[in-house]
Amino acid sequence: MSAVAVQPGRTIAELRELAALTSDEHGAQRVAWTPVWARAREWLIAKLAELPVEVELDAAGNLWATLHGVAPQALVIGGHLDSVPNGGWLDGALDTLAGLEVLRRVAAAGTPPITLRLVDWADEEGARFGRSLVGSSACSGSLVPADLAALRDRDGVMMPDALRQHGVVLERMTDARQQLATAAAYLELHIEQGPVLEGLGLPLGVVLGTFGVERHRITWRGQAAHSGSTPMDRRHDALAGAARLALELRHIAARVGGGGVCTSGSVITRPGIVTAVVETAEQLLDQRHLDADGLAALLAGARAAAERFAADERISVTWEHIWRIHPVPFHPELIALADEVVREVAGRAHHLPSGPLHDASEVARAGVPTVMLFVQSLRGLSHTPLEDTREEHVAQAVVALDRLASRTIAWIMAQPRQDA
Amino acid sequence: MSAVAVQPGRTIAELRELAALTSDEHGAQRVAWTPVWARAREWLIAKLAELPVEVELDAAGNLWATLHGVAPQALVIGGHLDSVPNGGWLDGALDTLAGLEVLRRVAAAGTPPITLRLVDWADEEGARFGRSLVGSSACSGSLVPADLAALRDRDGVMMPDALRQHGVVLERMTDARQQLATAAAYLELHIEQGPVLEGLGLPLGVVLGTFGVERHRITWRGQAAHSGSTPMDRRHDALAGAARLALELRHIAARVGGGGVCTSGSVITRPGIVTAVVETAEQLLDQRHLDADGLAALLAGARAAAERFAADERISVTWEHIWRIHPVPFHPELIALADEVVREVAGRAHHLPSGPLHDASEVARAGVPTVMLFVQSLRGLSHTPLEDTREEHVAQAVVALDRLASRTIAWIMAQPRQDA
Repeated sequence: MSAVAVQPGRTIAELRELAALTSDEHGAQRVAWTPVWARAREWLIAKLAELPVEVELDAAGNLWATLHGVAPQALVIGGHLDSVPNGGWLDGALDTLAGLEVLRRVAAAGTPPITLRLVDWADEEGARFGRSLVGSSACSGSLVPADLAALRDRDGVMMPDALRQHGVVLERMTDARQQLATAAAYLELHIEQGPVLEGLGLPLGVVLGTFGVERHRITWRGQAAHSGSTPMDRRHDALAGAARLALELRHIAARVGGGGVCTSGSVITRPGIVTAVVETAEQLLDQRHLDADGLAALLAGARAAAERFAADERISVTWEHIWRIHPVPFHPELIALADEVVREVAGRAHHLPSGPLHDASEVARAGVPTVMLFVQSLRGLSHTPLEDTREEHVAQAVVALDRLASRTIAWIMAQPRQDA
Repeated sequence: MSAVAVQPGRTIAELRELAALTSDEHGAQRVAWTPVWARAREWLIAKLAELPVEVELDAAGNLWATLHGVAPQALVIGGHLDSVPNGGWLDGALDTLAGLEVLRRVAAAGTPPITLRLVDWADEEGARFGRSLVGSSACSGSLVPADLAALRDRDGVMMPDALRQHGVVLERMTDARQQLATAAAYLELHIEQGPVLEGLGLPLGVVLGTFGVERHRITWRGQAAHSGSTPMDRRHDALAGAARLALELRHIAARVGGGGVCTSGSVITRPGIVTAVVETAEQLLDQRHLDADGLAALLAGARAAAERFAADERISVTWEHIWRIHPVPFHPELIALADEVVREVAGRAHHLPSGPLHDASEVARAGVPTVMLFVQSLRGLSHTPLEDTREEHVAQAVVALDRLASRTIAWIMAQPRQDA
């Protein structure tokens, strides 16, 4: 065994250093395609200059550091330095700097048997132009550059102009796809951004994949009627439809199982006055599942329930599709490796889906075997300067990522195609 | 029997005449304390000038026409010519003009055994200054004139100034109380302004009284949480409280019985976005019952259910009282007389409470035996130019009011106090 080990204390110090360099009194300001983000990257590039790695910016603005191994096949570790405005010190930066620490440890041991690459994805958050996962989707091939052509920030700056200032030409972004040609596996460590691990008292979790999402706007239409002169049995109360569905969602999620979630985040009632039965109730529905069939079952369950409630209540219901994304399950063998590592470091390994999307979803969609680790978020908070994780948990996370990298390198080397 | 009979066709013609005189292309504009309302009253006074009646304006602006009888005890028939802006042709005007027709029929038969009075109440609607039942509450004694002193219309005109232009001095309004000193009974015919009689296919109904009302704002507080990263069993969903209560209200109303109604007319969800569990749901509750105990039971039922739901859902609930009015049941013997008359005229007599308040509520609160008749409203519409009732139903209503007046005169004469 190599005598060299990761130094998680250095990662924590570097996270604090980066935060000091790129935050103001309202939090982190590393918004992609801005000078603060560029400063963060210059800082990272300076750190990488101390290592025997090749640094390049790809056609989509992703920053790659490559430690060439005996074989060209690569283990890729990813993260993103970009943040939302008024962000925290961990979201994305932890991933990148923990990856840097792994790169240091492997580089210190000499030329590795396979190649190790660290990628700092460009514009994971989509905070300035509203399109997230920009760099990783350019690599995975799911990005359609033309979709970005008309995007503007709040000051009216066009996205292609902002990209060009950072060396990215819209029409050539998908050239970045070649970056994944040699990728044999992808790892990402991220804060959970949810309450599950804290609730379980666990520092680390193994991520099963990212949820597929179905979003709909549901409009219930009854008949406005005077609160005083309309007997209960003569009402066509649109709120009743929305209320029944809001409650039924819990039963649907339980029936479908598999950790899927359903949320009715908004109900708007009209005319919305104390003296009238509700004529129109507009309800937003968000459903998520890790499995495509599970997601379809959640949606079918809600649709069937809505039809039943509309008939019962003598009101009408219409559905409007807002947004849909397919689930991205991670690689079962890498999940098994992550489970081993988390149990070693933290005693117990909880498996959980990711609600938010991550760059890892894009890489997995491109067919690269992928897994993620989550580290506990305090109070589930993220996208706020209140975002926090205990330092001892950050340290455990760096150790776990490092061990997972070693196991994954061994796993890649054991794959049949390596011998081909 | 007198050979003279009411002529309902004349009432319909007069209603059309009044509408033509006081409407524009948006509907009736007989808003109290305005020139159009004054014009409507001049028109009524001209009609009354043809009858052997004494006409006077009381201290609260109510217009009285008195047909003196052998005895000073009086049967009072009431209505209101004032309308909401963009109102219909019937609300209030039908009451007054049907009463006028009864007055004509009785006057034509010579001096009646007791006195008959028609009152055109001032400002039933409260459309200009937001305080309804102004004239009738001055007579009943429930009006506190000081409460009107600071009211302004939307142009900034003070209510006392507007009253003075119509001969009413704020401080003397309650002198109108003496008008009810001789009142032995009170009758009022009104359009239903609800869907019940139309639903039953009946032209006429007997009104049991006006509902008591309890209004509250209920605030449910949970915890905002990400729709994707928060498992179903870890949520504190404020919408669940509001939804459960909205649905439970129907069971509460059924359990309490007696025709009481409960309405949740508005739910406001915050933050109200598709990606977050609802943190706060603000719900408006309106409960009405004809019986004070029934009303208390509706409220107690809702409060108990809300506590139960808050505990179940691990959220909090707070109640804010908005408005309360006690129920006003009508006189049982007059209800029996109205039942007889409606059965004679329409074949079947449905008894129903009034959701909206009426001047009759104020008179009944003052201790005068009171009953109302309702005539069917098409589609339950009122306070709109679409307000309508079939002409044959209007005609039946005039006949029923006339017959009820005759029976009530006989009833008054049969009362012990008449002999005192």
